[in-house]
Amino acid sequence: MSRILYDLAGADPERRFSPFCWRSRLALAHKGLAVETIPWHFTEKEKIALSGQGLVPVLVDDGRVVHDSWAIACWLEEEYPNRPLLFGGAGGRAMARFLNSWADGVLHPGVARLVVADIASLLAPADQAYFRESRERRFGMTLEQVVAERERSVEGFRRDLLPLRLTLRAQPWLGGEAPNYADYIVFGAFQWARVCSPFPLLAADDPVAEWRSRMLDLFGGLARATPGHDL
Amino acid sequence: MSRILYDLAGADPERRFSPFCWRSRLALAHKGLAVETIPWHFTEKEKIALSGQGLVPVLVDDGRVVHDSWAIACWLEEEYPNRPLLFGGAGGRAMARFLNSWADGVLHPGVARLVVADIASLLAPADQAYFRESRERRFGMTLEQVVAERERSVEGFRRDLLPLRLTLRAQPWLGGEAPNYADYIVFGAFQWARVCSPFPLLAADDPVAEWRSRMLDLFGGLARATPGHDL
Repeated sequence: MSRILYDLAGADPERRFSPFCWRSRLALAHKGLAVETIPWHFTEKEKIALSGQGLVPVLVDDGRVVHDSWAIACWLEEEYPNRPLLFGGAGGRAMARFLNSWADGVLHPGVARLVVADIASLLAPADQAYFRESRERRFGMTLEQVVAERERSVEGFRRDLLPLRLTLRAQPWLGGEAPNYADYIVFGAFQWARVCSPFPLLAADDPVAEWRSRMLDLFGGLARATPGHDL
Repeated sequence: MSRILYDLAGADPERRFSPFCWRSRLALAHKGLAVETIPWHFTEKEKIALSGQGLVPVLVDDGRVVHDSWAIACWLEEEYPNRPLLFGGAGGRAMARFLNSWADGVLHPGVARLVVADIASLLAPADQAYFRESRERRFGMTLEQVVAERERSVEGFRRDLLPLRLTLRAQPWLGGEAPNYADYIVFGAFQWARVCSPFPLLAADDPVAEWRSRMLDLFGGLARATPGHDL
Protein backbone atom coordinates (compact mmCIF):
# COMPACT_ATOMS: atom_id res chain seq x y z
CA MET A 1 0.00 0.00 0.00
CA SER A 2 1.56 3.28 -1.06
CA ARG A 3 0.24 6.83 -0.94
CA ILE A 4 1.85 9.59 -2.99
CA LEU A 5 0.97 13.27 -3.38
CA TYR A 6 2.51 15.35 -6.17
CA ASP A 7 3.17 18.68 -4.48
CA LEU A 8 4.21 21.95 -6.13
CA ALA A 9 7.78 22.99 -5.18
CA GLY A 10 10.21 25.80 -5.88
CA ALA A 11 13.86 25.50 -6.94
CA ASP A 12 14.40 24.32 -3.35
CA PRO A 13 12.40 21.08 -3.36
CA GLU A 14 11.44 21.65 0.29
CA ARG A 15 9.69 24.93 -0.53
CA ARG A 16 6.11 23.73 -1.04
CA PHE A 17 3.88 26.65 -1.81
CA SER A 18 0.67 25.57 -3.55
CA PRO A 19 -2.45 26.55 -1.56
CA PHE A 20 -4.34 23.69 -3.19
CA CYS A 21 -1.67 21.13 -2.28
CA TRP A 22 -1.76 22.41 1.31
CA ARG A 23 -5.49 21.72 1.45
CA SER A 24 -4.74 18.11 0.54
CA ARG A 25 -1.74 17.71 2.83
CA LEU A 26 -3.71 18.93 5.83
CA ALA A 27 -6.68 16.77 4.85
CA LEU A 28 -4.42 13.72 4.78
CA ALA A 29 -2.96 14.66 8.17
CA HIS A 30 -6.49 15.16 9.55
CA LYS A 31 -7.31 11.61 8.48
CA GLY A 32 -4.07 10.39 10.05
CA LEU A 33 -2.90 9.02 6.69
CA ALA A 34 0.82 8.88 5.95
CA VAL A 35 1.82 10.16 2.53
CA GLU A 36 4.98 10.55 0.52
CA THR A 37 5.02 13.98 -1.09
CA ILE A 38 6.86 14.24 -4.39
CA PRO A 39 8.15 17.72 -5.26
CA TRP A 40 6.78 18.77 -8.63
CA HIS A 41 7.41 21.75 -10.88
CA PHE A 42 4.96 23.58 -13.13
CA THR A 43 6.64 22.37 -16.30
CA GLU A 44 6.83 18.67 -15.34
CA LYS A 45 3.54 17.82 -17.01
CA GLU A 46 4.65 14.30 -17.99
CA LYS A 47 5.24 13.39 -14.34
CA ILE A 48 1.49 13.70 -13.60
CA ALA A 49 0.21 12.62 -17.02
CA LEU A 50 -1.25 9.58 -15.25
CA SER A 51 -3.96 11.94 -13.91
CA GLY A 52 -5.06 12.97 -17.41
CA GLN A 53 -4.42 16.67 -16.77
CA GLY A 54 -1.61 19.03 -15.82
CA LEU A 55 -2.22 20.48 -12.36
CA VAL A 56 -1.41 19.43 -8.80
CA PRO A 57 -2.36 18.20 -6.28
CA VAL A 58 -2.50 14.68 -7.65
CA LEU A 59 -2.99 11.88 -5.12
CA VAL A 60 -2.10 8.28 -5.95
CA ASP A 61 -3.73 6.25 -3.21
CA ASP A 62 -2.85 2.57 -3.52
CA GLY A 63 -2.96 2.87 -7.30
CA ARG A 64 -6.08 5.02 -7.51
CA VAL A 65 -5.33 8.43 -9.07
CA VAL A 66 -7.32 11.46 -7.87
CA HIS A 67 -6.64 15.04 -8.91
CA ASP A 68 -8.07 18.41 -7.81
CA SER A 69 -8.08 19.37 -4.12
CA TRP A 70 -11.88 19.21 -3.79
CA ALA A 71 -12.05 15.76 -5.37
CA ILE A 72 -9.21 14.58 -3.12
CA ALA A 73 -11.04 15.75 0.02
CA CYS A 74 -14.21 13.97 -1.10
CA TRP A 75 -12.23 10.84 -1.97
CA LEU A 76 -10.59 10.78 1.48
CA GLU A 77 -13.92 11.33 3.25
CA GLU A 78 -15.59 8.48 1.33
CA GLU A 79 -12.67 6.07 1.36
CA TYR A 80 -11.83 6.57 5.06
CA PRO A 81 -15.20 7.24 6.70
CA ASN A 82 -14.12 5.82 10.06
CA ARG A 83 -11.30 8.28 10.50
CA PRO A 84 -11.90 11.88 11.71
CA LEU A 85 -14.41 13.56 9.41
CA LEU A 86 -13.22 16.35 7.12
CA PHE A 87 -16.67 17.81 6.55
CA GLY A 88 -18.64 16.81 9.63
CA GLY A 89 -21.60 15.47 7.66
CA ALA A 90 -23.52 16.19 4.47
CA GLY A 91 -24.31 19.79 5.42
CA GLY A 92 -20.66 20.55 6.03
CA ARG A 93 -19.65 19.04 2.71
CA ALA A 94 -22.18 21.20 0.88
CA MET A 95 -21.29 24.39 2.75
CA ALA A 96 -17.55 23.77 2.35
CA ARG A 97 -18.22 24.42 -1.35
CA PHE A 98 -19.05 27.99 -0.44
CA LEU A 99 -15.83 28.38 1.55
CA ASN A 100 -13.95 26.84 -1.37
CA SER A 101 -15.59 29.35 -3.72
CA TRP A 102 -14.77 32.25 -1.41
CA ALA A 103 -11.16 31.12 -1.17
CA ASP A 104 -10.82 30.65 -4.95
CA GLY A 105 -12.78 33.77 -5.91
CA VAL A 106 -11.82 36.32 -3.25
CA LEU A 107 -8.95 35.16 -1.05
CA HIS A 108 -6.55 33.73 -3.65
CA PRO A 109 -6.78 36.67 -6.08
CA GLY A 110 -6.21 38.97 -3.11
CA VAL A 111 -3.10 37.09 -1.96
CA ALA A 112 -1.79 36.85 -5.53
CA ARG A 113 -1.97 40.62 -5.97
CA LEU A 114 0.26 41.01 -2.89
CA VAL A 115 2.88 38.28 -3.36
CA VAL A 116 2.98 37.16 -6.99
CA ALA A 117 6.32 38.86 -7.75
CA ASP A 118 7.94 37.02 -4.83
CA ILE A 119 6.83 33.66 -6.21
CA ALA A 120 8.73 33.99 -9.48
CA SER A 121 12.11 34.24 -7.76
CA LEU A 122 11.56 30.99 -5.83
CA LEU A 123 10.93 28.87 -8.87
CA ALA A 124 13.16 26.39 -10.62
CA PRO A 125 14.73 27.98 -13.72
CA ALA A 126 12.55 26.02 -16.14
CA ASP A 127 9.39 27.20 -14.33
CA GLN A 128 10.28 30.88 -14.16
CA ALA A 129 9.54 31.76 -17.78
CA TYR A 130 6.29 29.75 -17.74
CA PHE A 131 5.12 31.42 -14.54
CA ARG A 132 6.01 34.96 -15.49
CA GLU A 133 4.51 34.70 -18.96
CA SER A 134 1.22 33.05 -17.88
CA ARG A 135 0.69 35.33 -14.85
CA GLU A 136 1.62 38.54 -16.63
CA ARG A 137 -0.88 37.66 -19.34
CA ARG A 138 -3.54 37.04 -16.67
CA PHE A 139 -2.89 40.36 -14.89
CA GLY A 140 -2.18 42.35 -18.04
CA MET A 141 0.98 43.86 -16.51
CA THR A 142 4.38 42.84 -15.15
CA LEU A 143 4.50 40.98 -11.83
CA GLU A 144 6.40 43.91 -10.36
CA GLN A 145 3.61 46.27 -11.40
CA VAL A 146 0.99 43.99 -9.81
CA VAL A 147 2.59 44.28 -6.37
CA ALA A 148 3.94 47.84 -6.65
CA GLU A 149 1.17 49.37 -4.52
CA ARG A 150 0.92 46.56 -2.00
CA GLU A 151 1.66 48.64 1.07
CA ARG A 152 -1.57 50.44 0.32
CA SER A 153 -3.63 47.72 -1.38
CA VAL A 154 -3.19 45.36 1.58
CA GLU A 155 -5.82 47.44 3.37
CA GLY A 156 -8.48 46.30 0.90
CA PHE A 157 -7.28 42.71 1.24
CA ARG A 158 -7.66 42.91 5.02
CA ARG A 159 -11.16 44.33 4.67
CA ASP A 160 -12.10 41.40 2.42
CA LEU A 161 -11.26 39.04 5.30
CA LEU A 162 -14.23 40.33 7.32
CA PRO A 163 -16.33 37.13 6.96
CA LEU A 164 -13.38 35.10 8.23
CA ARG A 165 -12.77 37.51 11.11
CA LEU A 166 -16.43 37.53 12.16
CA THR A 167 -16.55 33.74 12.11
CA LEU A 168 -13.41 33.43 14.22
CA ARG A 169 -14.90 35.81 16.76
CA ALA A 170 -17.79 33.38 17.20
CA GLN A 171 -15.87 30.10 17.30
CA PRO A 172 -12.23 28.98 17.54
CA TRP A 173 -12.07 27.23 14.14
CA LEU A 174 -14.01 27.48 10.89
CA GLY A 175 -14.91 23.84 11.61
CA GLY A 176 -16.33 24.82 15.03
CA GLU A 177 -14.72 23.47 18.21
CA ALA A 178 -12.02 21.69 16.21
CA PRO A 179 -10.43 22.32 12.81
CA ASN A 180 -11.76 20.60 9.73
CA TYR A 181 -11.58 20.94 5.96
CA ALA A 182 -13.08 24.45 6.11
CA ASP A 183 -9.94 25.55 7.95
CA TYR A 184 -7.62 23.79 5.51
CA ILE A 185 -9.29 25.43 2.52
CA VAL A 186 -8.72 28.91 3.89
CA PHE A 187 -5.36 28.31 5.54
CA GLY A 188 -3.86 27.09 2.26
CA ALA A 189 -3.84 30.68 1.02
CA PHE A 190 -1.97 31.96 4.09
CA GLN A 191 0.59 29.17 3.90
CA TRP A 192 1.11 29.93 0.20
CA ALA A 193 1.93 33.54 1.12
CA ARG A 194 4.13 32.53 4.07
CA VAL A 195 6.25 30.16 2.00
CA CYS A 196 6.70 32.65 -0.85
CA SER A 197 6.88 36.12 0.59
CA PRO A 198 8.11 38.20 3.53
CA PHE A 199 5.24 40.64 2.99
CA PRO A 200 2.98 40.84 6.10
CA LEU A 201 -0.57 39.97 5.01
CA LEU A 202 -2.15 40.55 8.42
CA ALA A 203 -1.93 43.11 11.17
CA ALA A 204 -0.47 41.55 14.32
CA ASP A 205 -3.66 42.17 16.33
CA ASP A 206 -5.96 40.60 13.72
CA PRO A 207 -7.84 37.57 15.15
CA VAL A 208 -7.13 35.91 11.80
CA ALA A 209 -3.40 36.03 12.62
CA GLU A 210 -4.00 34.23 15.91
CA TRP A 211 -5.96 31.49 14.10
CA ARG A 212 -3.21 31.24 11.45
CA SER A 213 -0.68 30.68 14.21
CA ARG A 214 -2.78 27.83 15.63
CA MET A 215 -3.09 26.36 12.13
CA LEU A 216 0.71 26.40 11.74
CA ASP A 217 0.98 24.36 14.95
CA LEU A 218 -1.46 21.61 13.93
CA PHE A 219 -0.25 18.06 13.35
CA GLY A 220 3.04 18.58 15.13
CA GLY A 221 3.72 21.82 13.30
CA LEU A 222 3.42 20.33 9.81
CA ALA A 223 2.86 23.67 8.07
CA ARG A 224 5.34 25.59 10.24
CA ALA A 225 8.13 23.07 9.53
CA THR A 226 8.04 23.89 5.81
CA PRO A 227 10.61 26.51 4.77
CA GLY A 228 9.04 29.94 4.58
CA HIS A 229 9.02 33.30 6.28
CA ASP A 230 8.65 33.60 10.04
CA LEU A 231 5.22 34.52 11.35
CA MET B 1 -48.95 24.94 22.37
CA SER B 2 -48.44 28.23 20.57
CA ARG B 3 -45.63 29.48 18.39
CA ILE B 4 -45.22 33.19 17.61
CA LEU B 5 -42.62 35.06 15.62
CA TYR B 6 -42.33 38.85 15.86
CA ASP B 7 -41.63 39.89 12.28
CA LEU B 8 -40.57 43.32 11.02
CA ALA B 9 -43.28 45.00 8.89
CA GLY B 10 -43.84 48.22 6.99
CA ALA B 11 -46.85 50.55 7.16
CA ASP B 12 -48.65 47.73 5.31
CA PRO B 13 -48.51 44.96 7.93
CA GLU B 14 -48.19 42.35 5.16
CA ARG B 15 -44.95 43.87 3.90
CA ARG B 16 -42.39 41.81 5.81
CA PHE B 17 -38.91 42.87 4.86
CA SER B 18 -36.35 41.89 7.49
CA PRO B 19 -33.64 39.59 6.07
CA PHE B 20 -33.09 38.17 9.56
CA CYS B 21 -36.78 37.42 10.08
CA TRP B 22 -36.85 35.66 6.70
CA ARG B 23 -34.04 33.39 7.85
CA SER B 24 -36.23 32.35 10.78
CA ARG B 25 -39.46 32.04 8.79
CA LEU B 26 -37.82 29.74 6.26
CA ALA B 27 -36.13 27.76 9.03
CA LEU B 28 -39.53 27.21 10.67
CA ALA B 29 -41.03 26.15 7.31
CA HIS B 30 -38.09 23.79 6.74
CA LYS B 31 -38.88 22.13 10.07
CA GLY B 32 -42.55 21.97 9.12
CA LEU B 33 -43.51 24.05 12.15
CA ALA B 34 -46.58 26.26 12.01
CA VAL B 35 -46.09 29.76 13.34
CA GLU B 36 -48.16 32.87 13.83
CA THR B 37 -46.19 35.88 12.65
CA ILE B 38 -46.92 39.15 14.41
CA PRO B 39 -46.16 42.30 12.42
CA TRP B 40 -43.76 44.47 14.38
CA HIS B 41 -42.39 47.97 13.84
CA PHE B 42 -38.93 49.31 14.72
CA THR B 43 -40.29 51.60 17.41
CA GLU B 44 -42.44 48.98 19.19
CA LYS B 45 -39.72 48.04 21.64
CA GLU B 46 -42.16 47.29 24.46
CA LYS B 47 -43.86 44.59 22.38
CA ILE B 48 -40.69 42.46 22.45
CA ALA B 49 -39.41 43.54 25.86
CA LEU B 50 -40.02 39.94 26.97
CA SER B 51 -36.85 39.04 25.00
CA GLY B 52 -34.69 41.42 27.01
CA GLN B 53 -33.56 43.36 23.93
CA GLY B 54 -35.01 45.42 21.09
CA LEU B 55 -34.51 43.58 17.77
CA VAL B 56 -36.47 41.01 15.79
CA PRO B 57 -36.78 38.16 15.02
CA VAL B 58 -38.10 37.06 18.40
CA LEU B 59 -39.56 33.55 18.62
CA VAL B 60 -41.89 32.55 21.43
CA ASP B 61 -42.05 28.77 21.22
CA ASP B 62 -44.52 27.36 23.73
CA GLY B 63 -43.47 30.01 26.23
CA ARG B 64 -39.75 29.84 25.58
CA VAL B 65 -38.42 33.15 24.23
CA VAL B 66 -35.51 33.06 21.77
CA HIS B 67 -34.13 36.09 19.92
CA ASP B 68 -31.51 36.52 17.17
CA SER B 69 -31.80 34.57 13.92
CA TRP B 70 -28.74 32.42 14.58
CA ALA B 71 -29.93 31.49 18.07
CA ILE B 72 -33.39 30.69 16.66
CA ALA B 73 -31.92 28.34 14.04
CA CYS B 74 -29.85 26.56 16.70
CA TRP B 75 -32.89 26.35 18.99
CA LEU B 76 -35.02 24.80 16.26
CA GLU B 77 -32.31 22.28 15.34
CA GLU B 78 -31.86 21.19 18.97
CA GLU B 79 -35.52 21.25 19.96
CA TYR B 80 -36.78 19.44 16.84
CA PRO B 81 -33.94 17.07 15.93
CA ASN B 82 -36.25 14.54 14.29
CA ARG B 83 -37.56 16.98 11.72
CA PRO B 84 -35.53 17.87 8.58
CA LEU B 85 -32.11 19.14 9.58
CA LEU B 86 -31.29 22.80 9.07
CA PHE B 87 -27.51 22.35 9.21
CA GLY B 88 -26.97 18.75 8.11
CA GLY B 89 -24.71 17.91 11.03
CA ALA B 90 -22.06 19.52 13.20
CA GLY B 91 -19.84 20.51 10.27
CA GLY B 92 -22.70 22.28 8.56
CA ARG B 93 -23.58 24.17 11.71
CA ALA B 94 -20.00 25.39 12.08
CA MET B 95 -19.62 26.33 8.42
CA ALA B 96 -23.00 28.07 8.34
CA ARG B 97 -21.34 30.60 10.65
CA PHE B 98 -19.08 31.57 7.78
CA LEU B 99 -22.05 32.00 5.44
CA ASN B 100 -23.78 34.02 8.15
CA SER B 101 -20.69 36.21 8.47
CA TRP B 102 -20.44 36.67 4.70
CA ALA B 103 -24.12 37.63 4.54
CA ASP B 104 -23.82 40.06 7.46
CA GLY B 105 -20.47 41.52 6.46
CA VAL B 106 -20.60 41.61 2.65
CA LEU B 107 -24.06 40.87 1.26
CA HIS B 108 -26.23 42.99 3.58
CA PRO B 109 -24.10 46.15 3.36
CA GLY B 110 -24.10 45.70 -0.42
CA VAL B 111 -27.90 45.39 -0.61
CA ALA B 112 -28.39 48.30 1.79
CA ARG B 113 -26.31 50.62 -0.39
CA LEU B 114 -28.66 49.83 -3.31
CA VAL B 115 -32.11 49.89 -1.69
CA VAL B 116 -31.96 51.77 1.63
CA ALA B 117 -33.80 54.83 0.32
CA ASP B 118 -36.69 52.63 -0.84
CA ILE B 119 -37.09 51.16 2.63
CA ALA B 120 -37.84 54.48 4.32
CA SER B 121 -40.95 55.10 2.22
CA LEU B 122 -42.47 51.73 3.18
CA LEU B 123 -42.32 52.29 6.88
CA ALA B 124 -45.05 53.18 9.32
CA PRO B 125 -44.97 56.91 10.12
CA ALA B 126 -43.58 56.40 13.62
CA ASP B 127 -40.70 54.31 12.20
CA GLN B 128 -39.69 56.66 9.41
CA ALA B 129 -37.87 59.23 11.53
CA TYR B 130 -36.10 56.51 13.54
CA PHE B 131 -34.99 54.70 10.41
CA ARG B 132 -33.81 57.75 8.50
CA GLU B 133 -31.95 59.21 11.45
CA SER B 134 -30.19 55.98 12.49
CA ARG B 135 -29.24 54.94 8.92
CA GLU B 136 -28.10 58.38 7.81
CA ARG B 137 -25.84 58.49 10.86
CA ARG B 138 -24.45 55.06 9.94
CA PHE B 139 -23.76 56.02 6.31
CA GLY B 140 -22.73 59.60 7.05
CA MET B 141 -25.00 60.94 4.26
CA THR B 142 -28.67 61.11 3.29
CA LEU B 143 -30.37 57.91 2.17
CA GLU B 144 -30.87 59.45 -1.25
CA GLN B 145 -27.15 60.13 -1.52
CA VAL B 146 -26.37 56.50 -0.57
CA VAL B 147 -28.31 55.12 -3.53
CA ALA B 148 -27.66 57.95 -6.01
CA GLU B 149 -25.00 56.03 -7.95
CA ARG B 150 -26.69 52.65 -7.80
CA GLU B 151 -26.95 52.09 -11.54
CA ARG B 152 -23.17 52.03 -11.53
CA SER B 153 -22.39 50.66 -8.06
CA VAL B 154 -24.56 47.57 -8.67
CA GLU B 155 -21.68 46.24 -10.79
CA GLY B 156 -19.47 45.99 -7.72
CA PHE B 157 -22.30 44.34 -5.79
CA ARG B 158 -22.67 41.72 -8.52
CA ARG B 159 -18.93 41.03 -8.49
CA ASP B 160 -19.08 40.48 -4.73
CA LEU B 161 -21.54 37.63 -5.35
CA LEU B 162 -18.82 35.55 -7.03
CA PRO B 163 -18.52 33.00 -4.18
CA LEU B 164 -22.28 32.44 -4.34
CA ARG B 165 -22.23 32.13 -8.13
CA LEU B 166 -19.33 29.65 -8.12
CA THR B 167 -21.06 27.51 -5.50
CA LEU B 168 -24.33 27.45 -7.44
CA ARG B 169 -22.45 26.33 -10.54
CA ALA B 170 -21.24 23.30 -8.61
CA GLN B 171 -24.49 22.33 -6.86
CA PRO B 172 -28.19 23.31 -7.02
CA TRP B 173 -28.45 24.70 -3.48
CA LEU B 174 -26.01 26.08 -0.94
CA GLY B 175 -27.17 23.15 1.18
CA GLY B 176 -26.19 20.69 -1.58
CA GLU B 177 -28.87 18.58 -3.27
CA ALA B 178 -31.62 20.24 -1.22
CA PRO B 179 -31.95 23.64 0.43
CA ASN B 180 -31.00 24.11 4.05
CA TYR B 181 -30.21 26.94 6.44
CA ALA B 182 -27.25 28.07 4.28
CA ASP B 183 -29.77 28.97 1.58
CA TYR B 184 -32.08 30.75 4.02
CA ILE B 185 -29.22 32.88 5.38
CA VAL B 186 -28.32 34.17 1.94
CA PHE B 187 -31.81 34.35 0.47
CA GLY B 188 -33.00 36.61 3.29
CA ALA B 189 -31.02 39.47 1.75
CA PHE B 190 -32.63 39.01 -1.67
CA GLN B 191 -36.10 38.81 -0.20
CA TRP B 192 -35.40 41.98 1.80
CA ALA B 193 -34.54 43.78 -1.45
CA ARG B 194 -37.52 42.29 -3.31
CA VAL B 195 -40.04 43.41 -0.70
CA CYS B 196 -38.60 46.94 -0.47
CA SER B 197 -37.37 47.98 -3.86
CA PRO B 198 -38.01 47.74 -7.60
CA PHE B 199 -34.29 48.08 -8.25
CA PRO B 200 -32.93 45.00 -10.13
CA LEU B 201 -30.12 43.53 -8.03
CA LEU B 202 -29.22 40.78 -10.49
CA ALA B 203 -28.74 40.46 -14.23
CA ALA B 204 -31.39 38.17 -15.71
CA ASP B 205 -28.80 35.61 -16.87
CA ASP B 206 -27.06 35.39 -13.49
CA PRO B 207 -27.24 31.84 -12.06
CA VAL B 208 -27.94 33.51 -8.72
CA ALA B 209 -31.23 34.82 -10.16
CA GLU B 210 -32.28 31.30 -11.15
CA TRP B 211 -31.56 30.06 -7.60
CA ARG B 212 -33.45 33.04 -6.14
CA SER B 213 -36.46 32.09 -8.24
CA ARG B 214 -36.38 28.53 -6.88
CA MET B 215 -36.07 29.94 -3.37
CA LEU B 216 -39.20 32.06 -3.90
CA ASP B 217 -41.09 28.90 -4.83
CA LEU B 218 -40.13 26.86 -1.75
CA PHE B 219 -42.77 25.87 0.80
CA GLY B 220 -45.68 26.57 -1.51
CA GLY B 221 -44.31 29.94 -2.55
CA LEU B 222 -44.04 31.30 1.01
CA ALA B 223 -41.58 34.06 0.08
CA ARG B 224 -43.21 34.88 -3.26
CA ALA B 225 -46.64 35.30 -1.62
CA THR B 226 -45.38 38.22 0.45
CA PRO B 227 -46.08 41.63 -1.12
CA GLY B 228 -43.06 42.91 -2.97
CA HIS B 229 -41.75 43.62 -6.43
CA ASP B 230 -42.09 41.08 -9.22
CA LEU B 231 -39.01 39.03 -10.04
